[in-house]
Amino acid sequence: MVVVLEKNATDKQIENIIKHLEDFGFAVHKSTGVQQIVLGAIGVKPDFDTRKVKILEGVAEVYRITEPFKLASRTFQKEDTVIKIKNVDIGGNEVVMMAGPCSVESEDQIFTVAEIVAKSGAKILRGGAFKPRTSPYSFQGLGEEGLKLLRKAADKFNLLAITEVMESSQIELIEEYTDIFQVGARNMQNFSLLRDLGKASKPIMLKRGLAATVEDWLMSAEYILSNGNRKVMLCERGIRTFETYTRNTFDLSAIPVVHKRSHLPVIADPSHATGLRDKVLPMARAAVAAGADGLMVEVHNDPEKALSDGPQALLPEQFEELMKHVKLIAEVIGRKM
Amino acid sequence: MVVVLEKNATDKQIENIIKHLEDFGFAVHKSTGVQQIVLGAIGVKPDFDTRKVKILEGVAEVYRITEPFKLASRTFQKEDTVIKIKNVDIGGNEVVMMAGPCSVESEDQIFTVAEIVAKSGAKILRGGAFKPRTSPYSFQGLGEEGLKLLRKAADKFNLLAITEVMESSQIELIEEYTDIFQVGARNMQNFSLLRDLGKASKPIMLKRGLAATVEDWLMSAEYILSNGNRKVMLCERGIRTFETYTRNTFDLSAIPVVHKRSHLPVIADPSHATGLRDKVLPMARAAVAAGADGLMVEVHNDPEKALSDGPQALLPEQFEELMKHVKLIAEVIGRKM
Amino acid sequence: MVVVLEKNATDKQIENIIKHLEDFGFAVHKSTGVQQIVLGAIGVKPDFDTRKVKILEGVAEVYRITEPFKLASRTFQKEDTVIKIKNVDIGGNEVVMMAGPCSVESEDQIFTVAEIVAKSGAKILRGGAFKPRTSPYSFQGLGEEGLKLLRKAADKFNLLAITEVMESSQIELIEEYTDIFQVGARNMQNFSLLRDLGKASKPIMLKRGLAATVEDWLMSAEYILSNGNRKVMLCERGIRTFETYTRNTFDLSAIPVVHKRSHLPVIADPSHATGLRDKVLPMARAAVAAGADGLMVEVHNDPEKALSDGPQALLPEQFEELMKHVKLIAEVIGRKM
Amino acid sequence: MVVVLEKNATDKQIENIIKHLEDFGFAVHKSTGVQQIVLGAIGVKPDFDTRKVKILEGVAEVYRITEPFKLASRTFQKEDTVIKIKNVDIGGNEVVMMAGPCSVESEDQIFTVAEIVAKSGAKILRGGAFKPRTSPYSFQGLGEEGLKLLRKAADKFNLLAITEVMESSQIELIEEYTDIFQVGARNMQNFSLLRDLGKASKPIMLKRGLAATVEDWLMSAEYILSNGNRKVMLCERGIRTFETYTRNTFDLSAIPVVHKRSHLPVIADPSHATGLRDKVLPMARAAVAAGADGLMVEVHNDPEKALSDGPQALLPEQFEELMKHVKLIAEVIGRKM
Repeated sequence: MVVVLEKNATDKQIENIIKHLEDFGFAVHKSTGVQQIVLGAIGVKPDFDTRKVKILEGVAEVYRITEPFKLASRTFQKEDTVIKIKNVDIGGNEVVMMAGPCSVESEDQIFTVAEIVAKSGAKILRGGAFKPRTSPYSFQGLGEEGLKLLRKAADKFNLLAITEVMESSQIELIEEYTDIFQVGARNMQNFSLLRDLGKASKPIMLKRGLAATVEDWLMSAEYILSNGNRKVMLCERGIRTFETYTRNTFDLSAIPVVHKRSHLPVIADPSHATGLRDKVLPMARAAVAAGADGLMVEVHNDPEKALSDGPQALLPEQFEELMKHVKLIAEVIGRKM
Repeated sequence: MVVVLEKNATDKQIENIIKHLEDFGFAVHKSTGVQQIVLGAIGVKPDFDTRKVKILEGVAEVYRITEPFKLASRTFQKEDTVIKIKNVDIGGNEVVMMAGPCSVESEDQIFTVAEIVAKSGAKILRGGAFKPRTSPYSFQGLGEEGLKLLRKAADKFNLLAITEVMESSQIELIEEYTDIFQVGARNMQNFSLLRDLGKASKPIMLKRGLAATVEDWLMSAEYILSNGNRKVMLCERGIRTFETYTRNTFDLSAIPVVHKRSHLPVIADPSHATGLRDKVLPMARAAVAAGADGLMVEVHNDPEKALSDGPQALLPEQFEELMKHVKLIAEVIGRKM
Repeated sequence: MVVVLEKNATDKQIENIIKHLEDFGFAVHKSTGVQQIVLGAIGVKPDFDTRKVKILEGVAEVYRITEPFKLASRTFQKEDTVIKIKNVDIGGNEVVMMAGPCSVESEDQIFTVAEIVAKSGAKILRGGAFKPRTSPYSFQGLGEEGLKLLRKAADKFNLLAITEVMESSQIELIEEYTDIFQVGARNMQNFSLLRDLGKASKPIMLKRGLAATVEDWLMSAEYILSNGNRKVMLCERGIRTFETYTRNTFDLSAIPVVHKRSHLPVIADPSHATGLRDKVLPMARAAVAAGADGLMVEVHNDPEKALSDGPQALLPEQFEELMKHVKLIAEVIGRKM
Repeated sequence: MVVVLEKNATDKQIENIIKHLEDFGFAVHKSTGVQQIVLGAIGVKPDFDTRKVKILEGVAEVYRITEPFKLASRTFQKEDTVIKIKNVDIGGNEVVMMAGPCSVESEDQIFTVAEIVAKSGAKILRGGAFKPRTSPYSFQGLGEEGLKLLRKAADKFNLLAITEVMESSQIELIEEYTDIFQVGARNMQNFSLLRDLGKASKPIMLKRGLAATVEDWLMSAEYILSNGNRKVMLCERGIRTFETYTRNTFDLSAIPVVHKRSHLPVIADPSHATGLRDKVLPMARAAVAAGADGLMVEVHNDPEKALSDGPQALLPEQFEELMKHVKLIAEVIGRKM
């Protein structure tokens, strides 16, 4: 931590500040400049609340110099985390495609979509059984029945399965059926859920919250990691800004930013980020070009009848076209798909 | 719902759009203007996904005309909701003060603070026993022990108690000790928790999420209301914007906005909104001047030693001054405190 | 400037970083901690681009420790700036009211409104003659004719006048008629205009840009101050966020924040901040409660017929009520109106 | 415009609303539903302030149904605008590269950089002579001398030139030297400048403001177009959000959004959007994959010594690599570079 003193800080104030820092457990170095004094407070306290120092008389500014996350940090682990699930590697050279409907709606629907996405080269089948909906009056998912159908469809077409978990009490049940737990954007800082997923055995895909900085997001990953589960991947799905022509603002720069700060894989979800079908293809291409380790895309055989988020689901032929484009783009940057 | 057609929409497209609207269950009225056709789709479907229409060929824009919330709406209930708890009315003429430490830390601390805030006129004692912290390494609260201490201190000084609930499995336990459940900003869209609190018997204070529009916030209230618990109050505590000199941006305009749209009481929390002690007094005054039905303020007898959020806690003498100011301001607008 | 090195920075990298800092003109102090080295780079270069250091090999983070503004800073001038114009002091104990129509539309209109606002206690008459409109097809103001009418109406009712300047070529003309130049939010970073206003003799009211941090805003004030004009006041009028129920988000916390960082007066404009008439009264009260040195409010004798922004203009009787409320609130905090 | 009435609107209120709409010049259609009445107000008034209706008694919501921009709209002109300048087409099949230093600093510098970027395939040389800087103490550009050097360097290497105009009084001078005028983000709503550029003969590149919605941006383009200059291209360069790890948030979804709404070409500037050199390559690739019609990239032969924005400038070899990548990506989507 670096503590910049006010230009007119008195000797007594400075003494008092140094005493406080030492009481908090820091070793203090003092640098006296022409106009200002700067204190370096050395000690490893990633969660120290710097405002405790900021409010002391004579302090102008305080800067934390250690990143608040540890296990999620590139400093802690230099090599990329590669999550191996059966025959699929997430975070390696291959760009992985996760695709499927927003919600599992029926056996017919999930099997039809699973066949379509498997044929075009997807490796992982997505499908919600427990749905977080902004309205209490909207379709909330099929529950366990949905999980069973998802698993059966995934197995039939040799796909992995990913599905969302909304509360700790669902973990045990979902773990029976899924290969990856998805944590939704609105639960990114549901710390109880993160803590309990840290004790689960299956990998977690943590979506970025609508108002989450990259730092918040990595701190939420830290919750899972520090509770023992090291198989965490992140998913950029758009943040909330003032722009209203798109559902959210897809922050693709977050992909290279996370790759520099952290060793965790980053997936991108152009369906939720844009909210409209005709923006999914260009933004899926852009995400791979920006370095995403995978894509999550909504596909539906009959989007007009979808029980949730149909308008952002791709038609089968659109998905096929998307796969062709993103494969070529992956190759341009030396990756496979 | 209003559907504006493209200027060059063909007869076939228009027919198809009307057929879809009817299939979705709407009655359709067609208005033909000089340059454009507008369809009125009448029917009460507050959760209808308008994008289902937006993606049809020939459609230019779609506007939902019904508010998506019902029970939370001023249209549904004209009179203000007044929540009566023992001798305290929340949402009536009186502006209610909730005050106390961020976290319950010890018997000594909570009793000392309770005495201070009661003496200055607060009616409700706040204090966290289960703390949502962005870092897994930070103090997470005393748990049940904290709840017991909070209850004892509140009873001793004739105060009500409010404390945060983080997960459904805590509801039963917390309900024994508290008078009001607090839902934190980061759990505002934890729909499982909201649903379960809808079945609880005690009132709920729902904090606004960092990226939540007023509409999102009222929809989250709707989750609780529609599950049976009508004793919901809202709490504005700052939203996330680009400004960094304050912790959050305190959206005080939301107070009159909510009062127009909804009948639910609105509390304001200047401590979390600004994050620094010297901004709490002016912003508490401003909140009451804007029409807040209550304030939630952090107070600590020894903020430097606080285990969480000490830098935004008021000193006892500052709290006393704040109470004097806000009482006078309440009177200016014809309210009591 | 404080430069935090990477944990594994090599001796050669450190040497190179120090050499660069010295070449940039800084004196360098090195603090060696258990895990990390921190360099203090001392020297007064408020506009130094810290990214020049951030990109050097071995650097983890860089923090600027000097505020980038000088003349606008509370460090440079401890006492509040009080701008005296004839019999009005802006920035002193009195809260000053500026009121009037959005645009000057006719002699009849501006005289009618001037009489109304003068009677209720306003000191300064606002009225636009050159209007920045988002649409090129909207009413753009009466130009010089509007300036003349504004001046005549102000003089008749013993008011000062404030009006907006949109481009440097208008400065000379407007200076003949106005007492205060207003710079609109969209021109807050029109640096050419700011520079030229720095050479004008009349005071400037600088509105905050829609995406401007408090720091950006003070930097724009610095442009005017550093060119010689020390009579600058600021005006908070709402920032752009994701919330859509109000036109902008009124950032009232910016008032105490600016008062701490700077000696310049801060005016608040609840009309533009909220965009709807029925929110102006509560937010005007809140602004004064938060410490605003003045208010700017739109008033119109016949808002339905106003050529611009009628829907946010107060009716005469509403303005009278507002004046009563804000006077009482000013008194609560020891100020006059 | 669509006007949704309150459920309990009285006959008298409805009559009054209809009268107002007719007085404003609209033809009114009334649709009576089960629960609510909807009025369609037909008439072509793109700049009508809908709040004039919103404030009438009995009105619940008002929706504008016509886009406020006309000449910029895809409805007005179906075919893409292709701007032809000498041998370069902007907005056609070819993706155009604009590259060069942030500022023109010396003859040696601009000739060196021009040679580098021409060799790698750029068609247009960028370089600022008049620089908008947030600090009045920063380097403000070489002025006319810079323009001359830019022109000479562009001519020597057979490049077009683009440079920024900051105020109307510079238009005549700059027009002598440049091929394209650049309007910076901070001047996007400097309506006086836009109006005057509408009378210039050379094309304009209009950068998106930090808080500008796509609609605001197109309205600013409308200012130029409606004053007679139809050669307008847009440039996405990042918007301001809460995220701080990047300088701005690069809103790449805006590219397909603009392409749907408007016929104007869209350039993307990954240098300003991210603010750091190592993010430029991935985000340049992403921009082309998203459909950008061109890129603007900062390149410097000696970025450490650059007088402005050096840290985001690419080194020559990085630029060469970038050109290789983006050419391949352009081919994937059927375009040339």
